[in-house]
Amino acid sequence: MGIAMIIDCHGHYTTAPQPFVDFREAQKAALKDPVQTPSRESLKVSDDAIRESLEKAQLKLQRERGSDLTIFSPRASTMGHHIGNESTSIEWSQIQNDLIARVVDLYPKNFIGVCMLPQSPGAPLDASVKELQRCADMGFIGANLTPDPSGGHWTAPPLTDRYWYPIYEKLVELDMPAMVHVSGSCNPAFHTTGAHYINADTTAFMQLIQGDLFKDFPSLRLIIPHGGGAVPYHWGRYRGLAQDMKRPPLDTHLMKNVFFDTCVYHQPGIDLLLKVIPVENILFGSEMVGAVRGIDPTTGFNYDDTKRYIDNSALSEADKRKVFEENAYRVYPRLKARLARLAG
Amino acid sequence: MGIAMIIDCHGHYTTAPQPFVDFREAQKAALKDPVQTPSRESLKVSDDAIRESLEKAQLKLQRERGSDLTIFSPRASTMGHHIGNESTSIEWSQIQNDLIARVVDLYPKNFIGVCMLPQSPGAPLDASVKELQRCADMGFIGANLTPDPSGGHWTAPPLTDRYWYPIYEKLVELDMPAMVHVSGSCNPAFHTTGAHYINADTTAFMQLIQGDLFKDFPSLRLIIPHGGGAVPYHWGRYRGLAQDMKRPPLDTHLMKNVFFDTCVYHQPGIDLLLKVIPVENILFGSEMVGAVRGIDPTTGFNYDDTKRYIDNSALSEADKRKVFEENAYRVYPRLKARLARLAG
Repeated sequence: MGIAMIIDCHGHYTTAPQPFVDFREAQKAALKDPVQTPSRESLKVSDDAIRESLEKAQLKLQRERGSDLTIFSPRASTMGHHIGNESTSIEWSQIQNDLIARVVDLYPKNFIGVCMLPQSPGAPLDASVKELQRCADMGFIGANLTPDPSGGHWTAPPLTDRYWYPIYEKLVELDMPAMVHVSGSCNPAFHTTGAHYINADTTAFMQLIQGDLFKDFPSLRLIIPHGGGAVPYHWGRYRGLAQDMKRPPLDTHLMKNVFFDTCVYHQPGIDLLLKVIPVENILFGSEMVGAVRGIDPTTGFNYDDTKRYIDNSALSEADKRKVFEENAYRVYPRLKARLARLAG
Repeated sequence: MGIAMIIDCHGHYTTAPQPFVDFREAQKAALKDPVQTPSRESLKVSDDAIRESLEKAQLKLQRERGSDLTIFSPRASTMGHHIGNESTSIEWSQIQNDLIARVVDLYPKNFIGVCMLPQSPGAPLDASVKELQRCADMGFIGANLTPDPSGGHWTAPPLTDRYWYPIYEKLVELDMPAMVHVSGSCNPAFHTTGAHYINADTTAFMQLIQGDLFKDFPSLRLIIPHGGGAVPYHWGRYRGLAQDMKRPPLDTHLMKNVFFDTCVYHQPGIDLLLKVIPVENILFGSEMVGAVRGIDPTTGFNYDDTKRYIDNSALSEADKRKVFEENAYRVYPRLKARLARLAG
């Protein structure tokens, strides 16, 4: 009984065709000079351009590295919730999510959609709830939720605050998980992929320790990407803090609802993750084509070829199957339904 | 040739007698109501009160756990650089550092001083430079430098910015290292010891990757506490980001100048640290009495008894000696001079 399918839970469309980049630049320019407001009709990209952008990148790497299906969302660093206002984010989210839907339509066996949300600093979450429904109707199976729409200023309340509840209610209704994923940092203190992403992962987990979110939403599932930020490395600190704060043990308090991906770019890091965190809570992810694109001179392989680290780990075959495939079905129930439809 | 001395590079005076806490509260209250301004003369604490606060805590743990000397600084979470203005921070820093000097005078074999700096959001660094000199004259061997005087709003420029250079110039002149250590978070998004501390460590390291600080200060030494935040766990990410950004390899770019402590509260975390980071760059630290005070039910020992993890690690005796003692002499040259004076 081998591994039937290798599912990468963390891929972004980092190679979207240039017209999307240009549209966003025009949208930003229009914030100061409304005359430059781009029309959606002007944004025309052929299926061939989309195919080309994927064939030489994500699809090539899927083939080379041996993964089958990528759970695919808009490029995280370009979500840019802090740019403009709520209307800016609504338009940009719709465009980005529609683009993901086109990718999935072109390559239904290789990609399945996760949406970005039209969050905006201080804005209510009605638009995000609406976009969640729209994307579910298009066949998406999850969402990326940023805990910091301000882009590095951290002005939003913790994820356990009732402010966020409309999104959680909708996620539960749709049986979708959310990946807690920030966008680009506009704070010069925080490098986007080297500090802000990792800090956000760590911050989110600690917020969850402090609160009681899963008492209110026992079936909600959150994925903390990038191997859980600093959390597995400091697992003793988090267990100890929870204990000092008279919180329940982490396995009952959080680990029925929180999952970490494997976007950790060296063997010792992955080995720690697999040793410390229960295998049921780990989802294969590579973040490719993403934050780190080079080849590790100490191995001769790409840093972000995380499948190799899991292949080379001490996990049993049964546990590898959980990480590569089975856990994903539990965390993303709409995935199984979708695959059944494709097979049927 | 055994280990002559076990030096804990990371201890804070977390158990300072109540009058110091009361003074700080009065100082805060006076920000709104100057009538409440406390006089320094009113702050009277006997040597016995100081002894008592240490005997039942840090000194007890030194004896129980078998460490000899703690490099000791004011309680990090109470530095509170964001509170009040520069004058507030100057007064509070002097009081805190004078208190550390008293501790060292009472127990010269058990403690040696590291100072806090009177940083304040947006303020120039002259007062910090002056306080560094004052503390060096009192026998201190290093300083704690916060990269975020705003207490979780991250309004300061990156550590590689010329804003910080007066401090680095003084540190080099005095041959003192700085530990990059934030204070308490006043941002509800960030739990102080569970998110803000760890994020700051990660953030500082990434700032150093982006810049060229050690070209300008080749002899400057910075300690990143809490095991380097998320950095060792994501060592592949940091090596890969440096490579993608055309920065030099980390061993030449940073690792002549940057050191990590061992405040990581479980065996697998310490094992990763010792495996991934060169042993020359690791200093024994426990942060006791500190962030996590409980007993790990999986081991029966305190989470922060980090000496045990190093004892139980795969390091050779010679390498353990580096971590427990020899590296500290290199990083804190004033320590050796001080010990020689004590012995003489």
